[in-house]
Amino acid sequence: MASKTQVGFIGLGNMGKPMAKNLIKHGYPVIATDIFPESCKELQELGAQILETPADVADKADRIITMLPSSPNVIEVYTGLNGILKKVKKGSLLIDSSTIDPAVSKEMAAASEKMGAVFMDAPVSGGVGAANSGKLTFMVGGVEEEFTAAKELLSCMGANIMYCGQIGTGQAAKICNNMLLAIGMIGTAETMNLGIRLGLDPKLLATVLNMSSGRCWSSDTYNPVPGVMEGVPSANNYQGGFGTTLMTKDLGLAQNAATNTKTPVPLGSVAHQLYRMMCARSYASKDFSSVFQFLREEEGQ
Amino acid sequence: MASKTQVGFIGLGNMGKPMAKNLIKHGYPVIATDIFPESCKELQELGAQILETPADVADKADRIITMLPSSPNVIEVYTGLNGILKKVKKGSLLIDSSTIDPAVSKEMAAASEKMGAVFMDAPVSGGVGAANSGKLTFMVGGVEEEFTAAKELLSCMGANIMYCGQIGTGQAAKICNNMLLAIGMIGTAETMNLGIRLGLDPKLLATVLNMSSGRCWSSDTYNPVPGVMEGVPSANNYQGGFGTTLMTKDLGLAQNAATNTKTPVPLGSVAHQLYRMMCARSYASKDFSSVFQFLREEEGQ
Amino acid sequence: MASKTQVGFIGLGNMGKPMAKNLIKHGYPVIATDIFPESCKELQELGAQILETPADVADKADRIITMLPSSPNVIEVYTGLNGILKKVKKGSLLIDSSTIDPAVSKEMAAASEKMGAVFMDAPVSGGVGAANSGKLTFMVGGVEEEFTAAKELLSCMGANIMYCGQIGTGQAAKICNNMLLAIGMIGTAETMNLGIRLGLDPKLLATVLNMSSGRCWSSDTYNPVPGVMEGVPSANNYQGGFGTTLMTKDLGLAQNAATNTKTPVPLGSVAHQLYRMMCARSYASKDFSSVFQFLREEEGQ
Amino acid sequence: MASKTQVGFIGLGNMGKPMAKNLIKHGYPVIATDIFPESCKELQELGAQILETPADVADKADRIITMLPSSPNVIEVYTGLNGILKKVKKGSLLIDSSTIDPAVSKEMAAASEKMGAVFMDAPVSGGVGAANSGKLTFMVGGVEEEFTAAKELLSCMGANIMYCGQIGTGQAAKICNNMLLAIGMIGTAETMNLGIRLGLDPKLLATVLNMSSGRCWSSDTYNPVPGVMEGVPSANNYQGGFGTTLMTKDLGLAQNAATNTKTPVPLGSVAHQLYRMMCARSYASKDFSSVFQFLREEEGQ
Repeated sequence: MASKTQVGFIGLGNMGKPMAKNLIKHGYPVIATDIFPESCKELQELGAQILETPADVADKADRIITMLPSSPNVIEVYTGLNGILKKVKKGSLLIDSSTIDPAVSKEMAAASEKMGAVFMDAPVSGGVGAANSGKLTFMVGGVEEEFTAAKELLSCMGANIMYCGQIGTGQAAKICNNMLLAIGMIGTAETMNLGIRLGLDPKLLATVLNMSSGRCWSSDTYNPVPGVMEGVPSANNYQGGFGTTLMTKDLGLAQNAATNTKTPVPLGSVAHQLYRMMCARSYASKDFSSVFQFLREEEGQ
Repeated sequence: MASKTQVGFIGLGNMGKPMAKNLIKHGYPVIATDIFPESCKELQELGAQILETPADVADKADRIITMLPSSPNVIEVYTGLNGILKKVKKGSLLIDSSTIDPAVSKEMAAASEKMGAVFMDAPVSGGVGAANSGKLTFMVGGVEEEFTAAKELLSCMGANIMYCGQIGTGQAAKICNNMLLAIGMIGTAETMNLGIRLGLDPKLLATVLNMSSGRCWSSDTYNPVPGVMEGVPSANNYQGGFGTTLMTKDLGLAQNAATNTKTPVPLGSVAHQLYRMMCARSYASKDFSSVFQFLREEEGQ
Repeated sequence: MASKTQVGFIGLGNMGKPMAKNLIKHGYPVIATDIFPESCKELQELGAQILETPADVADKADRIITMLPSSPNVIEVYTGLNGILKKVKKGSLLIDSSTIDPAVSKEMAAASEKMGAVFMDAPVSGGVGAANSGKLTFMVGGVEEEFTAAKELLSCMGANIMYCGQIGTGQAAKICNNMLLAIGMIGTAETMNLGIRLGLDPKLLATVLNMSSGRCWSSDTYNPVPGVMEGVPSANNYQGGFGTTLMTKDLGLAQNAATNTKTPVPLGSVAHQLYRMMCARSYASKDFSSVFQFLREEEGQ
Repeated sequence: MASKTQVGFIGLGNMGKPMAKNLIKHGYPVIATDIFPESCKELQELGAQILETPADVADKADRIITMLPSSPNVIEVYTGLNGILKKVKKGSLLIDSSTIDPAVSKEMAAASEKMGAVFMDAPVSGGVGAANSGKLTFMVGGVEEEFTAAKELLSCMGANIMYCGQIGTGQAAKICNNMLLAIGMIGTAETMNLGIRLGLDPKLLATVLNMSSGRCWSSDTYNPVPGVMEGVPSANNYQGGFGTTLMTKDLGLAQNAATNTKTPVPLGSVAHQLYRMMCARSYASKDFSSVFQFLREEEGQ
């Protein structure tokens, strides 16, 4: 088997680390860095080469994947003093899997292009479990000609690799999905709560909704009411899953995108505000389906 | 074949007329009335006996189905001067398929019980098409022992007959479903609009959502964006389907039920207000998925 | 001084009791009743005659004031088995100071008219303090010819007696004012909170708002931020004042009135939902300006 | 009289031009520029010196005022290729009266400091009328030691010059005020509309609100209902005043600031969305009080 060429990986957090491991499993030599040296050890033991800075990584590898918490981190890692673009090679392929503002993705793409490199946005859905099992969904935006090259790498880490269009559309698809998800989840939570108060059995109500036009992913796959389904966070005191803080961040990105494009998002805005209020209480680290509990609290108790 | 006993039917509107016809098709002699004499003619030609008032119907038939526009009509038809309860026979089964406030259903049940009759609420979903083809879904609330008797009749008109629990829970299930439906529809409309403004192709975005956690009935079965699906109102200038005015009425019922039970329904409330605003414009008689068009209108045009 | 004729008073709660006392102070012989016998004692000691039922009161007095918690109580006290209308004298003047649905006021007026009596709605603003000091504001709806007679009595208990128009408009004015009050209070709370997080001193921000177009009663007279003003509930841990539960009730009435008249009230609806959520937490018995505290809770604490 | 030193002025739009004229009236030699040469003519005829670029202005004047439409314009005028900071003199005082994101004000202040200059944010309220008459209100953020120097210039153009605190707090005060203003205006509009539908006379209702706790600037100074007040946009078909588009822009800034500081602004968000919807219709260029008309449209018409 011909040896594969090196791949750079920057950002070894909860998501990035298992993603990088899956690249190694698929035979790619990985050159990685992270601001927390301890995050690098585990990868080093698996054979990855650890360097000091993003610039160092860009000096060695011409295909780089980044997985970072938010827009400012992406800006720093690409255009900072020791950023990728300081030493990026001409013709490099830079894939950012962070979930950030699509406008920032466009800026990074423009800055990369000036250096002769190609930048694509490829945010993921699926969470830590899917990252571990290599079953992530990637939503990819950027120059279509480069999609095949990107897909080769992303397929090591994900089960669905979807091309969404021009630069930024990967981010757009991601934040659109999550905005609708938040609306559906809050809607399911308030509907289930109302039905219960009106005397309906929660399992029966879920069955009715799921056979009818009220059906949605939050009602049929991830029901927020304890006792209705097994194997979901609501069955486990809202542990695990997709945290309220992360959902709130994505709703903030959706709100920014809507403001910038002058798009009215009335329910998306209210959903954002409700998750914001939950973050300030005991729900910050619970799964986002705990909005049922937030709305459920009863008067006079 | 033994001849079947007579069934009363009160309310021969867009929904009631085809429902009564299906009873006749199944061999039930129908005794009907409606405040508009002309609505009765068609049924009379099919063999139905037409009487003057609800009281007259109750005098002849001990199983009666009512299908009326709103709570005040139901109160009038049951407890009015010429209402059913003036002449109802002991042991009669009264089934109300109107969509009304569950609190009114409970009042009618209590008033019926005083006269020795049994009242059940059995609102429908499915629209005129399903009424014609006998494929309605009935959500039934009331004394469980009477459900079998009710089901025998309702099966002539519907494909799904669901027992929901005590009196009023049929209405509860109906308005819960429609509240979540409205939230999902508006959410889908604003999400699709945002995605399009961010550069995504609408069909592609629908595909992404439907494979992901944003999936809901409004995105995968009744998509509100023209060009995404065929055979839905959005493909036909929002003609037909479920009118904005009717959805607004149901959201008003959901809001009342929520206020009465002190249940917070933040997205349900905003959805109600948005459909209310649409009613005052050119959207009143369009399908409720036209909320996409309402939100879509672009600045500077 | 000629002795004054008797006045009936039904409902001796937190508001009703001091109102009835003020009638006695002004020399009116009072005939009262309340479902809680203990509420009557204090008034009996001041010389009021206590009777068993509203009907008994109507049998003796031809001017009656009612002050009750909600619509069902009003319906019971007027049209119940022992209600006022069972024994009301022709030509009686019935003044209801409860805050209820204007539609119920209209029903009571119609029922009273059938018995030859005149019913007026006259809800109050001002709270327990103003009730004690006889400084309430009364908003009066009903036949204009009777306003002078009503004003004579109401002036013993209030400083402002405003004629608002036909029956129900007193209630309408009350719930309109309280809906706008709730919107202004929540708006002030979120604005002050945002300003503080952006680095503004709260007192300075209040000064800027109050000199500018953001000014409202909640910012300049009843500021919800502790430390900005003295002598308001926010200066006293939100004790006293106008309770969150009462505000929520009034917002429910406003919502019902809006639904019934097909009026869009987007901010009124969201305000209702927010106060509803507060009721289920520790804010139920606090002043409604505690919405600042509700919104203020900080993330990560 | 000793001659005054030159003042730079960049941005000669609807607001900037009358502001610059007032500086000239007060005896200041003005050096100005604008991207539209025709905007400069009028000022040139009054004696102002017109230069090509912001950099040119900075080369001549060590006190500069900028008045620009939005954040990107400010970034360009300060840090662009021909921006102020290319040729700014050490010790210069740079005052930005644009309404922009406070985060951008902070960036500009930091960039200015690197060049040895002082940047202050000083957005205005009062509109074109106040700009003409020199009666603007300035809300000023920045180093307190420089406030006296800033005030000397701003006093030529405004009646109230308020020091708000550290850099960005001028913007913060401005967007806070306008967010509360929008909430109060929409609240007043929906309340007046509800009251009218409930049978109240609009003038009477305004009187009741203004004597009560519902009172706000939008109800007592700028009432949105035609016929209630004179000399306001609602009396003139919503011509003039503060345009819906501008209010929507400010609500977008408030939303961004809230998202960035993790502050819940539920009513501010909904207000933003409603004005956004109005922008897409015929209300874009009308005064923002036309929200009454937007909500007022009646069903079935």
